[in-house]
Amino acid sequence: MELKDYISQIKPLDEEAMDKARRRQAQLAKPPGSLGRLEELSVQLAGITGRVYNRTEKKHLLVFAADNGVVEEGVSSAPQSVTLQQTVNLTRAKTGASVLCKHFGCGITVCDVGVNADIIEPRVLNRKIAYGTRNIVQGPAMTREQAEQAILTGITLAMETEADVLGIGEMGIGNTTTSSAVLAVLLDADVEAVTGRGGGITDESFQKKKVVIKTAIKNNKPDKNDVVDVLAKVGGFDLAAMCGAFLGCAITRRPVVIDGFISAVAALCACRLCPRAVQYFIPSHASYEIGYRLSMDAMGLKPLFLLGMRLGEGSGCPLAFEVLRAACAIINDMATFDQAGIDDGYLKEIREGDKFTVEGAK
Amino acid sequence: MELKDYISQIKPLDEEAMDKARRRQAQLAKPPGSLGRLEELSVQLAGITGRVYNRTEKKHLLVFAADNGVVEEGVSSAPQSVTLQQTVNLTRAKTGASVLCKHFGCGITVCDVGVNADIIEPRVLNRKIAYGTRNIVQGPAMTREQAEQAILTGITLAMETEADVLGIGEMGIGNTTTSSAVLAVLLDADVEAVTGRGGGITDESFQKKKVVIKTAIKNNKPDKNDVVDVLAKVGGFDLAAMCGAFLGCAITRRPVVIDGFISAVAALCACRLCPRAVQYFIPSHASYEIGYRLSMDAMGLKPLFLLGMRLGEGSGCPLAFEVLRAACAIINDMATFDQAGIDDGYLKEIREGDKFTVEGAK
Repeated sequence: MELKDYISQIKPLDEEAMDKARRRQAQLAKPPGSLGRLEELSVQLAGITGRVYNRTEKKHLLVFAADNGVVEEGVSSAPQSVTLQQTVNLTRAKTGASVLCKHFGCGITVCDVGVNADIIEPRVLNRKIAYGTRNIVQGPAMTREQAEQAILTGITLAMETEADVLGIGEMGIGNTTTSSAVLAVLLDADVEAVTGRGGGITDESFQKKKVVIKTAIKNNKPDKNDVVDVLAKVGGFDLAAMCGAFLGCAITRRPVVIDGFISAVAALCACRLCPRAVQYFIPSHASYEIGYRLSMDAMGLKPLFLLGMRLGEGSGCPLAFEVLRAACAIINDMATFDQAGIDDGYLKEIREGDKFTVEGAK
Repeated sequence: MELKDYISQIKPLDEEAMDKARRRQAQLAKPPGSLGRLEELSVQLAGITGRVYNRTEKKHLLVFAADNGVVEEGVSSAPQSVTLQQTVNLTRAKTGASVLCKHFGCGITVCDVGVNADIIEPRVLNRKIAYGTRNIVQGPAMTREQAEQAILTGITLAMETEADVLGIGEMGIGNTTTSSAVLAVLLDADVEAVTGRGGGITDESFQKKKVVIKTAIKNNKPDKNDVVDVLAKVGGFDLAAMCGAFLGCAITRRPVVIDGFISAVAALCACRLCPRAVQYFIPSHASYEIGYRLSMDAMGLKPLFLLGMRLGEGSGCPLAFEVLRAACAIINDMATFDQAGIDDGYLKEIREGDKFTVEGAK
């Protein structure tokens, strides 16, 4: 199947189920709307699954790892070998996101789509497209065929992954550079407005990073109306596969959590390929990285928490899964106004003047 | 023991443990500061317990329930009987906060400090001080002795509660009115700036509510430098007991989570009685209620999530407990830079030109 065949499978949310969920929320014993985003999430989830009552106990993080040729320009604080190192460590519950997955009972799949190394560690899934991208200053990151292959890899991996809810993360030194480049093109935005310091670079490297992004865009001339072209020219294998994974979750009608900046840019790519896909997306934390907010604004999404995080890997997803669990708990288990009356046979209210008395009626 | 004797037991955080936690965070394999609030929370927790490595698996919500005489002025959307009803329902995992407690494995204690009813339900802890407060428009809500009794009730209940972390919630129709009154006095703020619509009232009731608060302050003349006087004159039994509970957690050196607006005002009262108590406080969600932010600003605290919630009961605490668990997981289990090197006997990095190869070394 081709990309367009997959995309055609993404259907709108189930409006009838959403209406039912809204009616149920209105019946619950609380001031209308007083549980805010927890109510909205329950309605969105109903639209996604077609059911009012949902459970999201089976949670899974997909982490796509790849290297970026642009690191040779000196845009990153860490050496390229850290991609390999942390890709392996992600499978050992030793990195930020994987520690959180372990503690919150989330599954994790670490998928190599382009690490510049042969990885023997058997827990890293090998879907390698190439040993890293080419340096985007000197030419396109990858071929169009490779970009499509990466997107399809993400789609199929997400579709195959058994879970009630998924999160999409990444590991790839240099990928805030590619993400800023992709975002600048998609939004026709100034590079200054979408570029941050990533892992934490010096003033000098930061200036360099912005020049590198501008040069890459100028040299490659990506077509902002053609997402695959943008990803191929100034993106990365991780971004492309993540974009696919967001689509794969929407195809299989499951909620999918956006992590930070890079994940948000990948989600935006998915939205540009299929605008209705956004209906399946759940935000997590407000990344500290400057381009995050622009990506989210472009999708009309607002983060759920403010933790000042900028680690990546999918580290915001495990906590977002817990917010989703909370949303499910509320709509599933809260009493309605009818049920909340305590004159339920066990207790009886007796009004005496302005004082209530409750007595055991049994 | 008197209130001042309790307060004198609140000690500053352990700076040495905090320094150790900061050093540990700096060693973890991530860009410095990239886990934001999760890092800060781990440092705060170290200061609270005196240990770098902590676990907050035993979580507990204390809910203080009381009625407010001011409801006879028509300031609330719900009738007074809802306090009784929801106080009982809180023990049955049927209300917002108690549903979340059940799903997230938090204990809950529902404590009647002033519900205007005799409650037979045995799971409601009876620490009733009176059958509701008096109408603050007509005179003080309670006597100074009653306010002190309520604070001491909160202190001792928190001290007696076995938990690694506590959260403080409430149930009491009319308590956004009393909270706004207390906040206006403590901050010397305009009533307009601290008063919201609570559970959701009509424009007419909203105007009435603000007039009621202004009148109550004018008639009672609370001394803003005397928190007990403020609570006694324009507060409530719930607010006073919650204020005490915050202090009780600080006395026993345990982190305590602030819920929404009412909880934040109670926390601010605790800070005014003992400024260093704030070091033990953990924010949760940004309440939709207008006075929330002013209360938090006054304590120098920022919320962790943005869920648009305004239910009360302590409903923001269970998710904040999960954030704290995440903070513990990170500092306890993430690899340091030294540990993150994958040349660990199992895997070996071999550098070949610009390509890394990883081979099983065993």
